[in-house]
Amino acid sequence: MEPSPGASGVINCAAYAAGIRVADLAVEDIEQALTRKDQFVWLGLYEPDEALLRQVQRQFHLHDLAIEDAYNAHQRPKLEVYEGSVFVVLRTAQRHGTPPHIEFGETHVFVGPNYVVTVRHGSLRSHAGLRARCECTPQLLAKGPAYVLYALMDFVTDQYLPIVSSLEDEVEELEEVILGDERTAGATAQIYRLKRDLLSLRRAISPLVEVCNRLMRFDLPNIPDDTRPYFRDVYDHVIRMNETIDVQRELLTTALEAHLSLMSVAQNDHMKRLAAWAAMIAVPTMIAGIYGMNFANMPELAWKYGYYVSLVTMGLACGGLYVGFKRSGWL
Amino acid sequence: MEPSPGASGVINCAAYAAGIRVADLAVEDIEQALTRKDQFVWLGLYEPDEALLRQVQRQFHLHDLAIEDAYNAHQRPKLEVYEGSVFVVLRTAQRHGTPPHIEFGETHVFVGPNYVVTVRHGSLRSHAGLRARCECTPQLLAKGPAYVLYALMDFVTDQYLPIVSSLEDEVEELEEVILGDERTAGATAQIYRLKRDLLSLRRAISPLVEVCNRLMRFDLPNIPDDTRPYFRDVYDHVIRMNETIDVQRELLTTALEAHLSLMSVAQNDHMKRLAAWAAMIAVPTMIAGIYGMNFANMPELAWKYGYYVSLVTMGLACGGLYVGFKRSGWL
Amino acid sequence: MEPSPGASGVINCAAYAAGIRVADLAVEDIEQALTRKDQFVWLGLYEPDEALLRQVQRQFHLHDLAIEDAYNAHQRPKLEVYEGSVFVVLRTAQRHGTPPHIEFGETHVFVGPNYVVTVRHGSLRSHAGLRARCECTPQLLAKGPAYVLYALMDFVTDQYLPIVSSLEDEVEELEEVILGDERTAGATAQIYRLKRDLLSLRRAISPLVEVCNRLMRFDLPNIPDDTRPYFRDVYDHVIRMNETIDVQRELLTTALEAHLSLMSVAQNDHMKRLAAWAAMIAVPTMIAGIYGMNFANMPELAWKYGYYVSLVTMGLACGGLYVGFKRSGWL
Amino acid sequence: MEPSPGASGVINCAAYAAGIRVADLAVEDIEQALTRKDQFVWLGLYEPDEALLRQVQRQFHLHDLAIEDAYNAHQRPKLEVYEGSVFVVLRTAQRHGTPPHIEFGETHVFVGPNYVVTVRHGSLRSHAGLRARCECTPQLLAKGPAYVLYALMDFVTDQYLPIVSSLEDEVEELEEVILGDERTAGATAQIYRLKRDLLSLRRAISPLVEVCNRLMRFDLPNIPDDTRPYFRDVYDHVIRMNETIDVQRELLTTALEAHLSLMSVAQNDHMKRLAAWAAMIAVPTMIAGIYGMNFANMPELAWKYGYYVSLVTMGLACGGLYVGFKRSGWL
Amino acid sequence: MEPSPGASGVINCAAYAAGIRVADLAVEDIEQALTRKDQFVWLGLYEPDEALLRQVQRQFHLHDLAIEDAYNAHQRPKLEVYEGSVFVVLRTAQRHGTPPHIEFGETHVFVGPNYVVTVRHGSLRSHAGLRARCECTPQLLAKGPAYVLYALMDFVTDQYLPIVSSLEDEVEELEEVILGDERTAGATAQIYRLKRDLLSLRRAISPLVEVCNRLMRFDLPNIPDDTRPYFRDVYDHVIRMNETIDVQRELLTTALEAHLSLMSVAQNDHMKRLAAWAAMIAVPTMIAGIYGMNFANMPELAWKYGYYVSLVTMGLACGGLYVGFKRSGWL
Repeated sequence: MEPSPGASGVINCAAYAAGIRVADLAVEDIEQALTRKDQFVWLGLYEPDEALLRQVQRQFHLHDLAIEDAYNAHQRPKLEVYEGSVFVVLRTAQRHGTPPHIEFGETHVFVGPNYVVTVRHGSLRSHAGLRARCECTPQLLAKGPAYVLYALMDFVTDQYLPIVSSLEDEVEELEEVILGDERTAGATAQIYRLKRDLLSLRRAISPLVEVCNRLMRFDLPNIPDDTRPYFRDVYDHVIRMNETIDVQRELLTTALEAHLSLMSVAQNDHMKRLAAWAAMIAVPTMIAGIYGMNFANMPELAWKYGYYVSLVTMGLACGGLYVGFKRSGWL
Repeated sequence: MEPSPGASGVINCAAYAAGIRVADLAVEDIEQALTRKDQFVWLGLYEPDEALLRQVQRQFHLHDLAIEDAYNAHQRPKLEVYEGSVFVVLRTAQRHGTPPHIEFGETHVFVGPNYVVTVRHGSLRSHAGLRARCECTPQLLAKGPAYVLYALMDFVTDQYLPIVSSLEDEVEELEEVILGDERTAGATAQIYRLKRDLLSLRRAISPLVEVCNRLMRFDLPNIPDDTRPYFRDVYDHVIRMNETIDVQRELLTTALEAHLSLMSVAQNDHMKRLAAWAAMIAVPTMIAGIYGMNFANMPELAWKYGYYVSLVTMGLACGGLYVGFKRSGWL
Repeated sequence: MEPSPGASGVINCAAYAAGIRVADLAVEDIEQALTRKDQFVWLGLYEPDEALLRQVQRQFHLHDLAIEDAYNAHQRPKLEVYEGSVFVVLRTAQRHGTPPHIEFGETHVFVGPNYVVTVRHGSLRSHAGLRARCECTPQLLAKGPAYVLYALMDFVTDQYLPIVSSLEDEVEELEEVILGDERTAGATAQIYRLKRDLLSLRRAISPLVEVCNRLMRFDLPNIPDDTRPYFRDVYDHVIRMNETIDVQRELLTTALEAHLSLMSVAQNDHMKRLAAWAAMIAVPTMIAGIYGMNFANMPELAWKYGYYVSLVTMGLACGGLYVGFKRSGWL
Repeated sequence: MEPSPGASGVINCAAYAAGIRVADLAVEDIEQALTRKDQFVWLGLYEPDEALLRQVQRQFHLHDLAIEDAYNAHQRPKLEVYEGSVFVVLRTAQRHGTPPHIEFGETHVFVGPNYVVTVRHGSLRSHAGLRARCECTPQLLAKGPAYVLYALMDFVTDQYLPIVSSLEDEVEELEEVILGDERTAGATAQIYRLKRDLLSLRRAISPLVEVCNRLMRFDLPNIPDDTRPYFRDVYDHVIRMNETIDVQRELLTTALEAHLSLMSVAQNDHMKRLAAWAAMIAVPTMIAGIYGMNFANMPELAWKYGYYVSLVTMGLACGGLYVGFKRSGWL
Repeated sequence: MEPSPGASGVINCAAYAAGIRVADLAVEDIEQALTRKDQFVWLGLYEPDEALLRQVQRQFHLHDLAIEDAYNAHQRPKLEVYEGSVFVVLRTAQRHGTPPHIEFGETHVFVGPNYVVTVRHGSLRSHAGLRARCECTPQLLAKGPAYVLYALMDFVTDQYLPIVSSLEDEVEELEEVILGDERTAGATAQIYRLKRDLLSLRRAISPLVEVCNRLMRFDLPNIPDDTRPYFRDVYDHVIRMNETIDVQRELLTTALEAHLSLMSVAQNDHMKRLAAWAAMIAVPTMIAGIYGMNFANMPELAWKYGYYVSLVTMGLACGGLYVGFKRSGWL
């Protein structure tokens, strides 16, 4: 039975022969189980304490530094070979909340000749589904620990896909906002936040290129040749996401500059409109000022229709200005 | 007979000997035809369902992962070697609509020692013309499956050329708009859209550099030495388009900055013109205000020509300002 | 006894056998101690004068150029092999003061077959804790001079971590300032200062990638195979900090652009608000100007309620403008 | 006799022994001439039609794809090896017109063991001078076809030099314009055009780095060891021009940003000056307005010197403002 | 005796045995001196004419192309191997004048098995001090021509250091100007000029990385193994200066953007202050306008204290605006 995600310690520990679960093991029975050559042990841990990790270390004869890494977490994705075992660090990711932010966890994997140990940190999604899925295809699971490693990497990179897609969608929505409407002080902040998310996601994904590369190209212990095409598959996914992220980053940079440029155009337009209306108020004011002067001899003032003519003059001046500004595109 | 582009499944399946079509085959007869060493089979599929793909897999003994790729589509261009066969993914592209946007499709190719299987996804243009063209040059088609791969890559990259050219032309038109006339809020949006299109096109084209590189440099199964110069030819096209795209991207970046700079110049000019006209209205208003004061003792007011002199003064002030502003380039 | 940080010269000099301190040595006894194969000598210097350095050189037979480097300081981090000894330059860093700035020191290490010499320059923190810590784990110290090198590199890179973290935190605070509030002339200066600090920190850290790479990959004298995983550990730390710095740099660049963009939005908003209020003052002024004209025949002037109607008209005009500006978002 | 540049076809065809022209050949005699081991044939073509190219192909046994390239032109600079012959594509360039633009041509060279064929496209300058110059130094021409290739590459890259220099000069003039004087809407357009020219020139020059590299480093057929220093010479020129272009590109980017920055400074200055003058007009207008009020009881109005004092007050206010604005740098 | 820097031709020519000057030679005696295996010849030239260079070429059997390079100057720094001799081009630099600009010279060095020839172009500082210094350390000079090459490279790169430092200092001063005070139209120009100087300096320094790399890593003729640590020393200097230049370039880019951003902030502030003062003048003007209307029935006009109340109202309005603007940060 799968414990709740909150519980830490041993999640599951079993021996597999020909891809079929043959025994559930206690941690202290592992060393003995490892002596049988026709089976492998798969141990799953969740945020183990140091005592448990040390016990596991003794059972599997793991390297000190790898155990320290597995305990401390906060590693970047990497692959290391310690004597007989391959140690892989993966970062898991989930995007949630409002506004959404990306939360990262970590999964560490030890791949030995006949064992695989996974240590999960902080990830909200349990790997239980993964084990169940693997057990459904015993002909593949029979390939041994390397296949489990592949399944896990596939599982983790599949978590990135919806995040990358949602970021891609938000960039696209942002385009519409920026290019369509000018009311966009919020757009700048969103560009910044998207870029920050893309950069943090990239940090989790891009080291996987190197990890996959080594898994599919070089002779690593415990990674049989016939599992390499599987890692090539993960490699393809990783490369695609990396490319998507880079394209989105460049688009965001351009979007920010385009936004600034459109702001400048808008400001220019506002300034022109402002100037036009200012002129249409200032000219009648000037005319009124003139006929407000107190000279003794101002013949128009005495004229019966002077007032009306002055009003008409003001109206004509404004109308002329209006038409002129309209024509030259200032209004 | 070629089915309509909407139909999916087997488009064409034939055996070729010495570059000449010798037999039309049903899918279930392929395995037997493959036993004959002096001929090769060319099978063309369009968006096949899984059942058909599995049948094809059995006939040609293709690898599971390659079949999955061919079924799922959404791959990036790549070349992979699975045991005895070379698997190539290409992206097809077409630009249409108003405003034009680029639509991508995919073509997957399996190249075996004596067969070639093409799987087309989403592409609007059928490959029928390609098969016909190949059959016209039997001396080249006699080179076998690798030549078909070349012909297909040439066909696909030739589709990119008009798109790259049209983008190049639009960048050139944009230059005229930006550098010539200031009425260009739409220019910013177009720069953004062009950049986005160039980036998406680049994602389809640039992985082909690596694909061609491997085809022309390394020992791949089923790619005979005498076909390498052909792949070098495709390589040259791809490199050229890549370069064109990169140059256009850099030009667009510069164009966006130049646009912003010109906006700033224009704004400055408008502000100066605005200030000049404002001064020419404000000065007479001020003079009029002064003679509108109600002081008992204002000798000018009583003077017979005071009004006219004040009008002339206003006119002179405005004229002087106009000339001064003209000279200093504010008007 | 550890001298005060201000004192220069020999800080500590001892011989170690099987990881345990077996003898405190005077500088002139070193050469003889080096003849014993089962122990190694660890000499610690702080800003030695040339005479002392020359004496040390004679005792250990060190290379001229390395001694010159160790005397002059102002080196970039590097690893060099001089005949039988490995020479490593590290930069130490501390961030303090208000506003905080980064102060760099230098530590030079000579790693021989059975000796390790450390020369510290300008660093405020003594390495005494390091020696004590090493002596606590004799089973590790027994690995010899290479382990001391590791311990020192670990010690130095651990000093960077809080600096990198504090810079990261400041970038995050800055985001809030820039994206939240517009009163931010100081933000620009802080972006600039953070970028400068990141660049100077990067110069200290990034050469360590190459140094660690050589220590963990290539056959260097005096670096036994079983210490390589330790250097890989340092390598991981260095890579992570490098990545963090690069991400922060890119974020700062985006932040500066976002800041400019938001300034432009704000300026536009201010201009629109200004224009709106200007209109609401100018229109009553214009109306007042009209009724301030001195035409003999202005029927409204004689009307009893003329004045009140004009005031109401002004109020209505202002109200109408206010509502209109509110609706169009200018106010 | 050299035909006019407009004429196409065979420009010159001759056999050379020990660097001296020994026979003028018709195209149909080439194959026979090639059988003599002590001489080589140099054929020069200008925009040949397909029939002539096919004839030439038969005489020299050239590869199909190279001939197609030579016919189509629009290649990027490259070096390819087809069986026994080296095929080089070069781009020629000339800058002329007002405003100057760069016009590109192409020259293709086939270098065989005892022949060299040059095919010129679109270039305005004939290569006749080149052949004459080569014939003047028979001791060098005796090195054979590879020397002709060198001479041609040297000739072509020498055409770039004045273009690169003139662009460099224009960038320098632009600096003066931008940094010295603010009347520079045209400067932005020129920056853009210079950048576009630099980018197109770069596309012609930068692939030559790789071409020279292969000629001076790798074992290519028909390129004897003692000609390699010559290609290294061309390589140096190409690298230098590449560097110059890159420096100019970066300077132009900085210039554009500096321009924007200076525009912003200028706009700020204009706004401040505008505000100062506006204040100096607005204050007297306000004072005049106050004394234009029609209150029954305004003692100043009745005062004999009221008018003069109000004028002096206005003058003093303006003077005070003027001095204040001058001091704070707004005027 | 050292000729004045203006004199060209042979500066000094001597034979050295075991690091000690054993004979001063005339150019025509060189060839004979070269036959003695226990000594080497060091010839120093300053802007030699072609005749002298040809004579030198015959004496040392130097390669044609190297002599041409040495005659023409305007090379980029490089290292080339011509048969038995190593040819190195270095660029010398001096920064002087007001405003300071960088002047470049060139020094070419031929390093043979038992000779070293230096050709100086345009450099203002003679190399005489260098020769004297070498002669002071005969035990080092005894290492032969390679040591002279090292001494020269060290001498040349040491000239860069003060230039790089002064540029670094100016960038730092600029920071203060930009971040502290807004009166900075000159700052933009200075950023541009500093960037241009850094780019030109970089062109002189960065190729030395490759030159030093080859000298310290690869088997070059005439460069004995025990001189390699010396070139590694030069390499370190060059790398450090390169890094400094790159950091300064990036800082300048950021400074330019920060400057623009601060300009924008300042402009915004000025606009707000302007608006505030405009409002404080416009409101009394409006009130005065209202009481300047000529309606027959305006009760306030007849009121004894109307005028004073209106003045107080104006004052209160202005005071209220002032306080409000102060609070909202517009003043």
